[in-house]
Parts: sequence; structure tokens; C-alpha cells
Amino acid sequence: MNQDNTLHTTLTPEAANCRALIRRGAHTGPTAGLAPGYVQANLMILPKDLANEFLLFCQRNPKPCPLLSVAEPGQYAMPALGQDIDLRQDVPKYRVWHHGELASEPKDLMDIWRDDLVSFAIGCSFSFEEALLANSIDIRHISQGRNVPMYRTNIPTANTSKLHGPLVVSMRPMKAHDAIRAVQVTSRFPAVHGAPIHLGDPALIGIQDINQPDYGDPVDIHEGEIPVFWACGVTPQSIIHTVKPAFSITHAPGHMLITDISNASLASF
Amino acid sequence: MNQDNTLHTTLTPEAANCRALIRRGAHTGPTAGLAPGYVQANLMILPKDLANEFLLFCQRNPKPCPLLSVAEPGQYAMPALGQDIDLRQDVPKYRVWHHGELASEPKDLMDIWRDDLVSFAIGCSFSFEEALLANSIDIRHISQGRNVPMYRTNIPTANTSKLHGPLVVSMRPMKAHDAIRAVQVTSRFPAVHGAPIHLGDPALIGIQDINQPDYGDPVDIHEGEIPVFWACGVTPQSIIHTVKPAFSITHAPGHMLITDISNASLASF
Repeated sequence: MNQDNTLHTTLTPEAANCRALIRRGAHTGPTAGLAPGYVQANLMILPKDLANEFLLFCQRNPKPCPLLSVAEPGQYAMPALGQDIDLRQDVPKYRVWHHGELASEPKDLMDIWRDDLVSFAIGCSFSFEEALLANSIDIRHISQGRNVPMYRTNIPTANTSKLHGPLVVSMRPMKAHDAIRAVQVTSRFPAVHGAPIHLGDPALIGIQDINQPDYGDPVDIHEGEIPVFWACGVTPQSIIHTVKPAFSITHAPGHMLITDISNASLASF
Repeated sequence: MNQDNTLHTTLTPEAANCRALIRRGAHTGPTAGLAPGYVQANLMILPKDLANEFLLFCQRNPKPCPLLSVAEPGQYAMPALGQDIDLRQDVPKYRVWHHGELASEPKDLMDIWRDDLVSFAIGCSFSFEEALLANSIDIRHISQGRNVPMYRTNIPTANTSKLHGPLVVSMRPMKAHDAIRAVQVTSRFPAVHGAPIHLGDPALIGIQDINQPDYGDPVDIHEGEIPVFWACGVTPQSIIHTVKPAFSITHAPGHMLITDISNASLASF
């Protein structure tokens, strides 16, 4: 839920101002709705020895892992996405993983940053939600003030020698004619997951209970609506869960890196 | 069913040759699969006094009635769609309607043609089926050798002062990921109905029994598939059924006008 996300009224829409507030600890909640118009990114941070493997994984899985930028080892700036970005402290909440287990959820990485860490910024579906809203499509988790529901599926990712695990999807319920429009709208945004990967019966992709997401919050599904599923940038977290690398860092689901890139600039046409 | 559609082996792919065979009565069946790559059209022929009204109806209902060409009163050529077209005899089977009732199904209109008749050629979903097949999507009515199933819905068309009635849809069952791809593919073809208007539960658009189409033939729906519905150029026939104009002529469902226009030329991008 969005309890501590109380900054909507005081924030200016600029991405840099949002990052500054997050950096000084004034915003620690989910970032949905912050800096409208600007790309938000999933974050994956790995030691150098696993980074090339993950780069290959992203190449083989562009729908869940569309890469926006990859930093050099030890680099915590990411100038391609914003002049002043500091990846150690510009995300409201991080997750530190030891051998696949969640070890801590720090608000910054200043104490644990290492020179061998390689950071990956991955596109996020928040970018296409703006375009869906512009088409008068209700985004349920936004209208309900919740984090988007996400599910581990039975769809395998395209593995590499070391990395494998199930695809994670985000879900938005809508009427069929909105789902059709949503396919059109999101097809224009391949850099932020693109078109849905499934719609309709959740069981067909291995989701047993649509009301119990593996990440995020459940949302209401109204009569006559169908669930629509997009590949999700939380997929790397399910890979960590499966592969259990010794050390890794991600953002906490829904707590994204806000960039200076406009959502519009990611549209393919 | 396609019993009398026995010309696949002897026909050359050229549209003009197909029309010549149809004109001399050598092909009287449905035209699905004939002249691959060429646009097939729905036909609506009305007396001049109702023609302007129908033109307005098409403008207000572009998804079921995307106009490819409109002839002058009495004109039975349609050079915009093919040099040698004769609208009185180039369709394998016509339907003549008196006060909304089917009066006859002649193989040509030579005896009943009138100088006040205005002909409308309307885009047909056969044009986008080629693009779906190119994406390895099974088109069930083609693989089963049947006419596409069509249904009257509870979706009203945008009426004019004299014309109103329910939207007719064609249906193709497919897996969800093919349905998503089909939305993308058919969105490129607004001149031949474009994106689907519904998918999933048929009851939501007033279809009580998916196995009993109002036009065409039923097709098998496999486990895990959803029905996908497109606005259909047979909609004018449902308007006739509703409004009961004194006199009108259409093609028989599935028995289309084959044109010299390439399907590819109708793609919007």
C-alpha cells in the first residue's frame, strides 16, 4: 500500500526534484505517480563476475528486461538517464539479497557500495501507464492507491548458463475493449515491456490465485473485466530467488529510480 | 461450408482471372482463399434515394463499414478497385432483399440492374487474415474449410435518421498470445475493420451461443482459446434486416467481390 507516499502535494513534477527528496530521505514509499511524464526504472545491481551473464540474460529476455542503461563496474552515476543520478541513494528503498534470501531493505547503499558492482536500469511499466490513462483506461492499482500486483508465472525465461527462473508479470484488469486498446498503446513502448504477454485466464500461465500476488498488492477486478498481463521488470528478483547468487541488490518492488528521460521519448512511433 | 468451392487448383492467383471465372459462372462458392494477396470487398447496392443515407451511415460506422469505393448511380464499373469490374456479375452469389426479407440469391444482376442503383464496396476481414497467417496464427474457419462465423451483437451502430441496427461481428478463436499479436497485426489495417472490437466472453456483447452464428458456419474453439471479434462488413445486412428498405442488394456472406488492390497497400504503416 501507499501509506507513506504523502509527497504528491509538495513535489514539483520534475524528476530531479523527486530524486533530491528521495535522496535526503523525505520520500521512502512507492514512486507511482511521482514525476509524471518521466521514465522510472527497475534496478539490478550485481558483482562484476555475474554482470556479463546478466547482460546476456537481458538480451535474451527483452520483454521482462528491456535495458535502459548499464553502468561501468563501481560506477554509481548513470548520466544516460539523468545528470545527477546517484544509484546508491536515489531509490526510496533497496533490497539486498544474500544467496537468494532477502537480507535487508536499506534506504541507501552508502555503507555497502563496492567497486565491483555493476548496475542495470531496466524499463518499467509505469511509463506506459501514462499513455493508458490518456486513453481513459482506468489503472486499477493507481485508482485504488496500491502497488501494482505482480505474479510469478509458469513461463520460463530464456536462460543463460547461470541464470534461469520464471517470468514475473504485472496485471491490470480492464474491459475487453480497453484491453484491445491497451495492446495497441503498449505496443508502441517496447523499451518498457511493450505489448501484454497474456490476457484472460490466469491459470493458463500458472497463476493459481489472482487475489494473491507474489509481489505488490491485490486489486479489485470488476464484473466483465479480464486481467491483462505484462512482462515485469521484477523478473530479475524471481531469478535471484531461483538462482540464489551470493550477493545482489535490487530496488524494492514499486520503489523505482526516477529518471530525466521522458516517457514519450520511448515510443517507437 | 465450402462444398462448391472447387477451383483452388485451377485458378491462377490473379484477381482478374478469378473474376472472369466467377463472371462466366465457373465459380459460385465462397471466395475465401481465392486470389491470395488481393483485397476482397463486401457489396451493398441501394436505390439512389437511400444511398446518401447509407454513405452517412458508413461515415459514422467506419469499423464495420470501411468504404473502399462508391460508384455513381447506375454505374456498374468500379475502376478504383479493378479495370474490368462489372458489379452486376463479378460476385459469385448475390442477395436481393425486398422489405428486409431475402427475396432471391441470384448469380448475377443482369436482369434486375437499374439506373438508380448505387454500389458501395466495403472492406473485408479476408484482407487481414493473410497477415495473421503470416504470423503463424491459425485461422480456424480456413483450416476447417468453412465460412467465417458471424454474429449479430447487442452493440448498436451509430444510427442515421433512417438507418439503424446492431453491429455484426466475425469471430476467430485463438490463444491469448495470438490474440495479442492479432490486435497488433489488424490495427495496421483500418480499411478492413482494423483492431478487434471485443475478445473473451461472448455474452458481454449479446452473443448467447457461440456455436450458433447468425451468418456463416460455426468453428471449433479449442481448450485455452478465446474468441476474438472483429466488426464485420455483413453489418449492412443486419441493418436491412432491421430497417426493411423496399429494395436492396448485397453479396451473399463469404461470396465477395475480388479486386485488383493488394492487401499490403491497405496497411497504415
